[in-house]
Amino acid sequence: MEKREFLYEGKAKKLYGTDDPTQVVVEYKDHLTAFNAQKKATMGGKGRLNNLISAHLFEKLRDRGIPVHFERILDDVHQLVKKVVIFPLEVVVRNITTGSLCKRLGIREGMELPRPLVEFYYKEDALDDPLILEDHALLFGWATREELDTIKALALRVNDELREIFSGLGIILVDFKLEFGRDMEGNLLLADEISPDTCRFWDRSTGDRLDKDRFRKDLGDVLGAYEEIWRRLSGGAGR
Amino acid sequence: MEKREFLYEGKAKKLYGTDDPTQVVVEYKDHLTAFNAQKKATMGGKGRLNNLISAHLFEKLRDRGIPVHFERILDDVHQLVKKVVIFPLEVVVRNITTGSLCKRLGIREGMELPRPLVEFYYKEDALDDPLILEDHALLFGWATREELDTIKALALRVNDELREIFSGLGIILVDFKLEFGRDMEGNLLLADEISPDTCRFWDRSTGDRLDKDRFRKDLGDVLGAYEEIWRRLSGGAGR
Ligand SMILES: Nc1ncnc2c1ncn2[C@@H]1O[C@H](COP(=O)(O)OP(=O)(O)OP(=O)(O)O)[C@@H](O)[C@H]1O
Ligand SMILES: Nc1ncnc2c1ncn2[C@@H]1O[C@H](COP(=O)(O)OP(=O)(O)OP(=O)(O)O)[C@@H](O)[C@H]1O
Ligand SMILES: [Mg+2]
Ligand SMILES: [Mg+2]
Repeated sequence: MEKREFLYEGKAKKLYGTDDPTQVVVEYKDHLTAFNAQKKATMGGKGRLNNLISAHLFEKLRDRGIPVHFERILDDVHQLVKKVVIFPLEVVVRNITTGSLCKRLGIREGMELPRPLVEFYYKEDALDDPLILEDHALLFGWATREELDTIKALALRVNDELREIFSGLGIILVDFKLEFGRDMEGNLLLADEISPDTCRFWDRSTGDRLDKDRFRKDLGDVLGAYEEIWRRLSGGAGR
Repeated sequence: MEKREFLYEGKAKKLYGTDDPTQVVVEYKDHLTAFNAQKKATMGGKGRLNNLISAHLFEKLRDRGIPVHFERILDDVHQLVKKVVIFPLEVVVRNITTGSLCKRLGIREGMELPRPLVEFYYKEDALDDPLILEDHALLFGWATREELDTIKALALRVNDELREIFSGLGIILVDFKLEFGRDMEGNLLLADEISPDTCRFWDRSTGDRLDKDRFRKDLGDVLGAYEEIWRRLSGGAGR
């Protein structure tokens, strides 16, 4: 499958059309942004690692029965996915308190929640992706009751699967952001990416941050952390 | 009932003990604040009007079966209420889009919602009273499932009753903020105040703002608006 016309450039990825109108090619860029793109950097090799990690995780989730947009990996920085219309929602699942949750609500960092917390944010950079209630999504037409229920149930299943996968690699899955969409056949699919850009991973024994928090908080060796995630996931020295 | 020792001073009211440990006296102050007290003013007579309006509305709600903290009015600026432990929640009910809802979510002003929207905010000035999910309140111990359900149902009943009352006076009830608490016998009661400080009232024929938005937006004649609300509620020339 060849990539054809350029469709869209986001902060971390580019989208291209293909000869099949139901599919698009995702190109993973080396750009890293944080705080709604107020902080920016380029990190050679980051795009490749996120492409490999994301493809690997989508495959695992697909094997476990989660409907995903992912079709197949094409090369180091490209993957083929089902084209979807993305719901304007960022779906965050949290297992341990940290980040914006603690800041907004004055909550202590690093507390394990008694059950996973699912939060919806309205995906709108100009508004800084505000937290919303399900009722906001319903009243303003961003999703239906059934869609929210499906998305929430899928997000919790993804959490279960990912926690199991990472737990086996000595990594605590702290929290992560998902996006969902509908393909041209009307299927509701898990889309976008699953990578150290969109998840918080803590090393179980050392507590080391193995994700974009290294960039947000200037902890150094961002790429090394992404490489470590890929090393453990691929069960070896990396590809 | 005499007011005894000073207990607490908030932005708009003071609380005093009484000889009865289950009751407190609320003193309505002339202070007006907005934007989490970044904007301040004193308006002679505002305390009296809010005391009269709030007492009147609590009486009407009590008559209609809503459990309220209000016992009786004492004088121009004092009322006797049941002492409660306030839930750290500000409960907002909206019938028409405006204010922070529109700002946060990029929603058009002045749209009538197809059904009332109930929002919970975490009552914590230092955090700017952030919007929360019911799950946040549950996970961080601010209320139980049963308490949230009761509070939400009461808030919607209060909305129905207040809309009816104000509709009969040519006033549209746009939105309002409630607080709830538990008294020493364990009853869950509607508490705090219901006034032009805590509600948005729009005149049905002219569209005039008859509430604290006149102060927030420098529309002038704030006190005149509060007087107009009391004039209509009391069905005459005011007390
Ligand atoms: N299968 C898909 N079909 C169509 N669009 C998708 C698909 N998967 C992800 N996208 C979208 O691709 C875009 C590019 O991704 P990227 O992460 O670079 O965007 P972003 O800068 O984070 O956010 P924004 O959505 O604001 O552009 C995102 O808008 C994302 O929602
Ligand atoms: N029946 C009651 N028993 C005990 N406290 C009450 C009762 N009704 C209201 N209160 C509390 O009285 C306090 C004073 O009211 P006021 O509106 O001045 O406070 P505020 O400045 O708006 O907010 P804050 O709660 O942050 O002080 C509020 O904290 C309110 O929650
Ligand atoms: Mg993105
Ligand atoms: Mg108050």
